Formats: sequence, C-alpha cells, structure tokens
Amino acid sequence: MAKSETEHTVTVQLPSSHYPVIIGRSLLTDRAFIASHVVSRKVLIVTNTTLADLYLPDLLGALAENVCDVVILDDGEEHKNRQSLWKIYDALVANGHHRDTCIIALGGGVIGDIAGFAASTWQRGAPFLQIPTTLLAQIDASVGGKTAINHAGGKNLIGSFYQPSAVLIDMNTLNTLSSRQFRAGLAEIIKYAILVGGHFLQQVHGMLQDWAAADSVAGFLRQSTQMSDIIRQCCQIKADIVQQDERESGVRALLNLGHTVGHALEAVTKYERWLHGEAVAIGLYVAALLSGQQAHLSPEQIEYIDDMLLLAGLPRRIPRDLNRQHIRDLVNADKKIRNNTLRFVLIKAMGDCYIDDSVSDAVLQNVLQTAMEGE
Amino acid sequence: MAKSETEHTVTVQLPSSHYPVIIGRSLLTDRAFIASHVVSRKVLIVTNTTLADLYLPDLLGALAENVCDVVILDDGEEHKNRQSLWKIYDALVANGHHRDTCIIALGGGVIGDIAGFAASTWQRGAPFLQIPTTLLAQIDASVGGKTAINHAGGKNLIGSFYQPSAVLIDMNTLNTLSSRQFRAGLAEIIKYAILVGGHFLQQVHGMLQDWAAADSVAGFLRQSTQMSDIIRQCCQIKADIVQQDERESGVRALLNLGHTVGHALEAVTKYERWLHGEAVAIGLYVAALLSGQQAHLSPEQIEYIDDMLLLAGLPRRIPRDLNRQHIRDLVNADKKIRNNTLRFVLIKAMGDCYIDDSVSDAVLQNVLQTAMEGE
Repeated sequence: MAKSETEHTVTVQLPSSHYPVIIGRSLLTDRAFIASHVVSRKVLIVTNTTLADLYLPDLLGALAENVCDVVILDDGEEHKNRQSLWKIYDALVANGHHRDTCIIALGGGVIGDIAGFAASTWQRGAPFLQIPTTLLAQIDASVGGKTAINHAGGKNLIGSFYQPSAVLIDMNTLNTLSSRQFRAGLAEIIKYAILVGGHFLQQVHGMLQDWAAADSVAGFLRQSTQMSDIIRQCCQIKADIVQQDERESGVRALLNLGHTVGHALEAVTKYERWLHGEAVAIGLYVAALLSGQQAHLSPEQIEYIDDMLLLAGLPRRIPRDLNRQHIRDLVNADKKIRNNTLRFVLIKAMGDCYIDDSVSDAVLQNVLQTAMEGE
Repeated sequence: MAKSETEHTVTVQLPSSHYPVIIGRSLLTDRAFIASHVVSRKVLIVTNTTLADLYLPDLLGALAENVCDVVILDDGEEHKNRQSLWKIYDALVANGHHRDTCIIALGGGVIGDIAGFAASTWQRGAPFLQIPTTLLAQIDASVGGKTAINHAGGKNLIGSFYQPSAVLIDMNTLNTLSSRQFRAGLAEIIKYAILVGGHFLQQVHGMLQDWAAADSVAGFLRQSTQMSDIIRQCCQIKADIVQQDERESGVRALLNLGHTVGHALEAVTKYERWLHGEAVAIGLYVAALLSGQQAHLSPEQIEYIDDMLLLAGLPRRIPRDLNRQHIRDLVNADKKIRNNTLRFVLIKAMGDCYIDDSVSDAVLQNVLQTAMEGE
C-alpha cells in the first residue's frame, strides 16, 4: 500500500463537534491512514457508477480489515432523491448495520449530500466520513455539514445540518476529473475569491491564468504548485464562516453569492443543462451587475469578475432561448422579502460582500436583460 | 375563546436550545396562548383521522389568524412510515411553505415522531410545536427530541434528535382517551417510578390504586387530584435525564428500561397486537425477573412491580402462542455485546437502575420461560 502525503489540515471547530479536513495525495490507498479515520468494523460506502470504476477498488483495498457494504447510485443530480436515499437505508437494514456503522461518501457533492443525509438519520445519527472526489465537493460541499436530497418541487428541500467525522481530500482524484467538472469547481473558488478579496483573489486570478493556458486537468495539476494551497484556503474560508454560523441564521448566507440566480437557472433548465458550478458562474455575473446598480461596484470590478469567469472557461451569460420572465418568477418566489423587494448577496468591493434586502423587481429585470447573451 | 389554566411548567435546558413543557387545561382553545407559541404566519398541522374529529376544530379556531394547512394521516403505528412522511413534505411543497413555517404535531407518539422528523428535515430544520394528546406522548414521547419513522426492517430506524420549540400538554385531551390508550401511558409512568423510586414511586402506586377502582378514564380524571402533578414529575424526570445526555451516549439509555423485550414483542407480533406501552409492560416484568437473577432484586420488589402493572390493568406475561425462541433471537440481534452477552437496563433496587452488559443467553432463556403465561 502506498504511503500517503498529507499537505494541509484545516480544523472545523463547532460547539458540538470538531473535525479535520485533510488535504493530501494517495490518501485513498493508504490503509493505515484510512483505518485511523474509520472507527467501526462494519462500513457502508456510498458512491456512484463512475467512481465505482475509478476509486472503489482502492478504498476497498484500504478497508480490507473491515466488513464493507457498498451502495452504487447512478451518477447525476437527478438521482439525489428519495429512491436513492431508500437504497441506502435498505442496504443498512439488509446487512444488519447498527448505529455505530461508519457511512463513507466517496464522490462529488451529490454523493456527499445524500450519504450525509442518510448518516444523519440512520438510527438518529451514524458516524460519517467524507471522501470528496470533485473539485467542487473538495472546496465547498464536503465542508460545513449541509446534507440534503431534492424534492420534485425543489432542490435540497429535505435535509439536515450534520457534520462529518473527517473530510479526506485526495488531490489525486482530481486527475480523472473532466475539464467541465473541474471548471464547475473553479466557479466556487471564484466565489470565495470575491468574498475575501486581497491576496487570495490575486492568487486565484494567477491560477486561472495558468488554467486557461493548460491543455488538460491532469496537465494543469502537474504544473500547478498552488492548487493544494488554494483548496486549503477555500476550506479555511468555509470553516471560518461555518464556525460563526453553523445553521445559516446570519453570515453563512454570504456563501450564497451567485446562488440565487444560479438556482433559478438550474430549476428553469430542470437541472439538465448545467452543472451546479456552471449555473453559479452565470449567477456570479448577475450578482456583479446587480452590485453595480445597488452598491456602486465599479465597471472595472465587474469586468474583473467577468474576466475570471472567462479565464475559467465558464458560461457567463443567460442563453437567449431561456425565458427571462420565468427566471425572474423563480427568484421572486424564493427571495421575496416585503414591500416587493428581493434579497441578494451583493458586492460592495472585492472582499466586502453583504446581504441586500432592497433589490426591486425593476432593477432585477433590467439586470437579467443586460446579462442575456449578445446584449 | 376559553381562557386556559396553566398548572405546571417544566423547562428542558439543553446546550443548543431550551423550551417549556406546559401542563394545563383548555390550552387548545385559548387563542392568545396558542398564538404566543406559534411564531410563523403559515402553519402546517399534522394529525390523524381520530384527532381530526376531536381537536382539530379547536386548534384551527385558535389559529384563525394564521394560514393553516393540515395533513391528516391514518391512525396507528403502521402508518409511521415513508409514505406518511412524504405526504407531509408534499403538503409543504404544494402550499409554498418556507423554512420558517411552524409544524405542529397534534396527536400521540406516532404523530409527534413523524411530524418531528419532518420538521427536523424540512429545509434543514423548521420550528416544531408538540401538542401531545395521549398520556404516553404527554409523559414521554413529546419530551426530549427523539423523532423517527419506521423502516420495514425495524422500528424507529430512521430518525433524528430534534427538539420542539415547546410542548403544550392539554390535560383535557385525556378525557377522550380509551382505557386501553390510558393504560399504555401508565406503563411508562410505572417505568419512571421504578427508575426514581422514593416518594414518586409511592405516589404512583397510590394513583394506580385509584385507577383500579375507577369506572372510566374520564371518571378517574374527575376524581384524581394528582394526575397533573404526576405528569409534571414524569416530564421533569425525562428533562433531567435528557439534559445530561441528549443523544443517548450514556444515562439516557436508562429510559429503555423494559424496552428491549418490549420492542422484540412488538416486532414478533408485527406491531399489531399491542400498543407500545402494553409491550413495555411485559418488558418491565421481564426486566424485573432478570434483575432478580443478575442484581439480587428481591422477590418482594419483583412482586411490587408486578402488582403495579396489575393495578394498571396491563398485560404482564408473554402469551403462550408466541415463539419464545423468536423473541430471544430478536433480542440477540439487537443487543448482543461481546462474548455472547447481552445488554439490558436492570434494577438493583427501586430508584437504582443500571446498564448490565453481562446477561447470558441461558439466563435470558430461563427468564423468558418464567415470564410465559401460566408458568
């Protein structure tokens, strides 16, 4: 078995629990390392058909001393539903798992969300280990304890706050990620960069320039000296915010920058057209335009954001075939506050975001128009 | 609208929340009282077909200023399942409820468990109000934050720890309870009396003598001067234990006195033969016999326990048509520790219970034989 290299550890410190986010290489194939994070003899691994071919044999090898059951779900957001959830419960029951069974999520955000929800509700809470394999899950979804499944009526409507016992980020898993999946993760990195600004923003901008010049994900990762440090900083930013506000009653809402319109775009295209990060990318551009209207964000800053999205290779405009009125209605239904104003996370300046409760429908409509392709 | 009378308030004080358990009369019909515990304008009430006829009109009257949606489930433990849970989610989605909607459980333990689980998972946690209408729910199930649904493979396998914002116990609702339902609640009161002993045990014994002489639940309640004080003390005992150990990693397990065999009896009869409290009553007798073997509980004490169950009018013996081996296998599957010993909550003396990890299969078999009818 390969010896792993641990490059960084971020600790998430909450009132009721604390856990490490460990960033390194060859973690998945290091039996002693994996064993130190799995306390139960019986284990249930939740993964999907794609990951089962790529990394499940490694993980099962590392867990050779344990009794492992595996649930393999179909790949994709449309399977983050009730049927998949019950597949997990059924496997736990059929194989006689107890309350102390460790449930392991091996996959991206969808797998982490659904396995985490199953763990939070199996016998009122079983140990849960996150092994995120996509960039987006590594820098965002796996940290902070949000779990969920979708309801036919909306995304993440059924869920819980439930923290993992550890998050193990094996950078090697990024090598098999498609460019498209990698770009989707970059959208959330750009979000963090806007939220905190300063040196991190410059570092991300530089990384995006390298990425734009790279020929493939694996090629980029071979040359990039900064990627694991950027992942570390994203996890640290998320940890800092979650530590202040685990249950999103305040500052955690800032992490929704770009997500209000992003979620509406996902819903209006039935979650089929874009990856989550791609919809967020367009949402970030809309948030920048709204910030220009509401918070005097300068045209140069808006262009800087747009340029980062361009370097990442992400979509930035609302396609003309989409119904602008429908997008606006979805945002309205979700975010209406009072006196017909809307709530958005907006940008005063890079590193200075805030919750704005005073966006009028007229301003939103105007901005959606501006954000359409070819305008 | 009637003015309510509040007789007692017990506060449950936990690290992350605290809430009142309010015991009184005519609470349900007091608009100002109910309104003070419902913070959201939109409300979802979960109840069952029986309660919908009895108390739903009162509650809807008290909530006339709110926008109320109602989910009416079929009555009975067999409906504490996935289908009923999704009825609640579907109603929340169809009626446009948000994360701040107050979900109200109007009913017994089944309604409280399933509505509480729905509240804990609706948009990662919505406000939840318990209005328990059975004796068992008032003195046990509604306090402490255990929520659950059943899986075909076992009881309460899917659930969460999620505390209500308040528990409103309207003693008037006991007047419409059947004798059988009332007796099932008495089983859990006897459990508390064994757990704490002393004056409370004597008080409960005296109450049971009055109950044995009464002609009906309503008749008993008219004459009983102690019932609301006994309910208060049960809630206080539960609160004290839950405050020490919300997630059942230690002392809270003592509340499972009588439940190990009780659950096996429910499972072996497919939850159709007994109410939960009735199965617990037989389980309490088995626990007393086991305590005689393992902890030298005296024959007089065992008889005292048996006598309380008899006064309550509860079943105390395992019917001869049940397969003793099957019961033993279910207990084995659930409670096996190591070296083939079993874990039980046992009684050293009244008011002095403990977790015993050393019950052998031979002792259990012997005791199950002794507890059979007609032995």
